[in-house]
Amino acid sequence: MDQTIEQSHEQSIRERIDEFAQAIRDKDLSAVLACYSPEIVSFDLVPPLQYKGLDEYRKPWEETFAAYDGPIGYEVRDLTIATDNTLAFSYSYNQMSGVMKDGQKMALWVRWTACWQRINNEWLIVHEQVSVPIDLTKGTAVLTLQP
Amino acid sequence: MDQTIEQSHEQSIRERIDEFAQAIRDKDLSAVLACYSPEIVSFDLVPPLQYKGLDEYRKPWEETFAAYDGPIGYEVRDLTIATDNTLAFSYSYNQMSGVMKDGQKMALWVRWTACWQRINNEWLIVHEQVSVPIDLTKGTAVLTLQP
Repeated sequence: MDQTIEQSHEQSIRERIDEFAQAIRDKDLSAVLACYSPEIVSFDLVPPLQYKGLDEYRKPWEETFAAYDGPIGYEVRDLTIATDNTLAFSYSYNQMSGVMKDGQKMALWVRWTACWQRINNEWLIVHEQVSVPIDLTKGTAVLTLQP
Repeated sequence: MDQTIEQSHEQSIRERIDEFAQAIRDKDLSAVLACYSPEIVSFDLVPPLQYKGLDEYRKPWEETFAAYDGPIGYEVRDLTIATDNTLAFSYSYNQMSGVMKDGQKMALWVRWTACWQRINNEWLIVHEQVSVPIDLTKGTAVLTLQP
């Protein structure tokens, strides 16, 4: 593929991720969901194994926003993007932070892999995986790692 | 992209994943690593946050194979593949099973997202994420989910 087009696709996805992060900071559910394909299959941080379709995936986002008391911080670090003409993928470390309604302070780094498709000249996330590593022996989530 | 070429790319990746699964069952470290790009960035099931490059990523695979006493079972379920000309991604539920050296029986389903690049007409995994969901309140890994 032409290198200029590839760079332009990469730039579009970078802007899309900026919008995504800002939408989370704004607790703007519609703007968050606008980054996803209606056919999204998400392997999210929390159960079940997958969320399939925007109708289903709306709920954990609503619950996340509802769990925070006041503003949400959102940072994307070490972002890598690879694009072809109609497909792309990105991966990064993302941190959501703030104060929960139960008073607990939260600042958790997760690994984020997003798979993108260009549909009607708009890049949308069609699949993603969000996780932290686990300690297999203890059966615990490892929540304290910093990138 | 021509639909026939796209189907042929999809078929290549499907075969690659079959080889990958068989290499794990065979505890064939070289054959497993041959599916990865030398530049692999893996967000693996266990810490750290990432393994970068094949030299680094060899170690957790060696340890996994060493942890099993006797044969390893490996199943890939609900595989989805999307391809463009030089990039592709796949996602599925993968189960590794067997008896550990400490006598414990293991049969764990993980979510697997693999990002592929066609390099010298060979599809290689350049990025992957492997995880189980976690219970954020308890800080535990959810290890019992079935697809």
